[in-house]
Amino acid sequence: MLHIAKRVADMREPEILKYNPLIAKAEAAGKTVYNLAIGQPDLKTPNAFLRQAAAHKGDVHAYAMPEGSPELRTAAQAYYARAGYRFTPEDILVTGGGSEALMFALNTVCDPGERVLIPEPFYSVYKDLATSLSIRIDGLKTETEKGFDLPDVDVIEAAVTPQTRAILITHPGNPTGKVYTKAEIDRLIAVCKKHDLFLLSDEVYREFRYDGTPFDSPAFDPSARDNVVILDSISKRYSACGARIGFIASANPTFIKAAKKLCEMRLAVSSADQAGAAALLAMGLGFFDNMLAEYARRREAVDACLKKIPGLVYQKPMGAFYYMVGLPVDDADAFMRFMLTEFDEDGETVLLAPAGDFYTDDLTGKSEARLAYVLEEDKLTRALTLLGHGIAAYQAKTDEQQRPANIINKFI
Amino acid sequence: MLHIAKRVADMREPEILKYNPLIAKAEAAGKTVYNLAIGQPDLKTPNAFLRQAAAHKGDVHAYAMPEGSPELRTAAQAYYARAGYRFTPEDILVTGGGSEALMFALNTVCDPGERVLIPEPFYSVYKDLATSLSIRIDGLKTETEKGFDLPDVDVIEAAVTPQTRAILITHPGNPTGKVYTKAEIDRLIAVCKKHDLFLLSDEVYREFRYDGTPFDSPAFDPSARDNVVILDSISKRYSACGARIGFIASANPTFIKAAKKLCEMRLAVSSADQAGAAALLAMGLGFFDNMLAEYARRREAVDACLKKIPGLVYQKPMGAFYYMVGLPVDDADAFMRFMLTEFDEDGETVLLAPAGDFYTDDLTGKSEARLAYVLEEDKLTRALTLLGHGIAAYQAKTDEQQRPANIINKFI
Repeated sequence: MLHIAKRVADMREPEILKYNPLIAKAEAAGKTVYNLAIGQPDLKTPNAFLRQAAAHKGDVHAYAMPEGSPELRTAAQAYYARAGYRFTPEDILVTGGGSEALMFALNTVCDPGERVLIPEPFYSVYKDLATSLSIRIDGLKTETEKGFDLPDVDVIEAAVTPQTRAILITHPGNPTGKVYTKAEIDRLIAVCKKHDLFLLSDEVYREFRYDGTPFDSPAFDPSARDNVVILDSISKRYSACGARIGFIASANPTFIKAAKKLCEMRLAVSSADQAGAAALLAMGLGFFDNMLAEYARRREAVDACLKKIPGLVYQKPMGAFYYMVGLPVDDADAFMRFMLTEFDEDGETVLLAPAGDFYTDDLTGKSEARLAYVLEEDKLTRALTLLGHGIAAYQAKTDEQQRPANIINKFI
Repeated sequence: MLHIAKRVADMREPEILKYNPLIAKAEAAGKTVYNLAIGQPDLKTPNAFLRQAAAHKGDVHAYAMPEGSPELRTAAQAYYARAGYRFTPEDILVTGGGSEALMFALNTVCDPGERVLIPEPFYSVYKDLATSLSIRIDGLKTETEKGFDLPDVDVIEAAVTPQTRAILITHPGNPTGKVYTKAEIDRLIAVCKKHDLFLLSDEVYREFRYDGTPFDSPAFDPSARDNVVILDSISKRYSACGARIGFIASANPTFIKAAKKLCEMRLAVSSADQAGAAALLAMGLGFFDNMLAEYARRREAVDACLKKIPGLVYQKPMGAFYYMVGLPVDDADAFMRFMLTEFDEDGETVLLAPAGDFYTDDLTGKSEARLAYVLEEDKLTRALTLLGHGIAAYQAKTDEQQRPANIINKFI
């Protein structure tokens, strides 16, 4: 028998992608599906991206430097400086999207069988990346009801094992919307310093914060410079997911030197995307004001709609563009399949991302789902009306199925 | 102590890149360095690439499908059909360059500690990719003097261990220029079938063949469809290294389904590069005639020059655009450092890639180097004149250094 590696065999197909055939079938049948399952922003990508990507100089479309083009690393350094970071261009490696930044960072800090501690629920792709590299994830429990706040230092420390090499956070959080406070970041830094752990801070949603919530990156603490590694991407920030440009940034030269070997191994990142990305980063932080105002309006619209649906458990997010929602259903996956195959209202339905993938175990997120507010306000309002009606229809259906069983039980 | 993973700590910085500071220093001092160390084609990238890459439809530069855009997979299928392959678009995964194709294929077939058998000398990046994934490489010895021909079946079989999961070939070969014959491919297929191994065939130089040398891909054998995986890239073929577009193609649906999970894990490949690549693939095989005529002329020019340098060991390559050259020096790395720091003729010098990285051990390639004929004929001729004079100067220098030692030895 030909052998598929266990580490790849053990990877699961992402739940979100499993719905693609059902979405295609629903759409082929004329249904409209409001897709709130994927974090693909709908805002217009700034023109600067493609204009610059196409303005290639010279006749030969050659390899860029493995660590990134000097232009993009300089633009990234300037962007970070405006955002309060003190990185030099040499502290920054350009990667093929945030995914490669994560992959390379995990590869650099963990050998097979070693572990990373991650507050859960977490971005589901972390699980696949770790599995593919034979790395284990330990979850650090945080809860919707407590606003996903981190536990006390002793609880965090208790989750550190002799094999733990890093703590990985998403800050602001996906799927939680959590923005860690200075006190929480200090707690993480203390544990990382005490136990010689890297603190990998995935900050791809850095600018997505509401109600004036301040941002404290662990990179702002000069005493933690050896421990802290920033993982980043332009995808969400500039609505440029199709450009595969991410960053690894760290003031720890030993870490950067090691991670750079992985950059050299894959030769280069897309030259066109790097040119486009440099143009985006040059736009400055002011660019985000309009974008944030739009997302803030959407968040209010979502919140107003969710209030009207009975039985939901959620917190208004402080950052990113997601709500984690506890649904009054037995199984969010079964409910989503119901929404795609059985439910519609005037030919329309809605899809969220079931949260099973966001936890280390299969049970905790079973009745939760992630809602991405990546559509315009009126569409979001319509989508969430459909969600409310869908929940009611699903509850009526499951009640009906359970009733005969109950009756039979009564008479046995 | 903060811990860097052993698998990354064990990776070596590519020799070629180690010279970059020396090149920069030489150039800053006004020296011209004819760089024959890197396989970066100098031919013009077809205009179709950037024209199409920039012609993005729609306002949002969104994620492409994890397995590649339908347009590019269809264009790749048509390209493969013209080249004699019977892949469906579903057999093809789009990757971030040939490097990612290799990374994903190795990850899919090997768990940590498992092994891949590779005829050596081989493309040095294979070593880094394997090391980063905790995979071991076994070398299958082939020799310049024998034209890098594969050994008999029993020798190949003797190199297969219980941990071997695949045989990986570069066909046509880098750095060897070897194009495997039908008989050699049949031998590899026989061993792979008997021992349940994947046969990974890296064919990024497919069209680069000289003197009418025919091409037999292992994918042409329908009886081996479960074993064979093609790894590919548009980089060399279209002089488009800066576009990070590669392919994994296999008629084994179990393999493709597993490898696709790795594609899903990193979300997508650059949308702009995919659009550009589809335009390149649509140009048809006729495009390669002019390109090959140019490389064939360069190969003759190189051959005429090498004949004039005493003490070289080499074979005229049948494919790709490299010569493996045995040099009459003790240490090719020391010789290259000499060429960059001490030697010049009218302010000019030349750089080849020392071959140490192309072998599993550190000794076999110590006096060999790879020469990439990626410059125009007159520049190549000048570069190789410099090589001949440089060898003579280096020999004179090392002879001089050894003489006093010899004299001393005589009197002890």
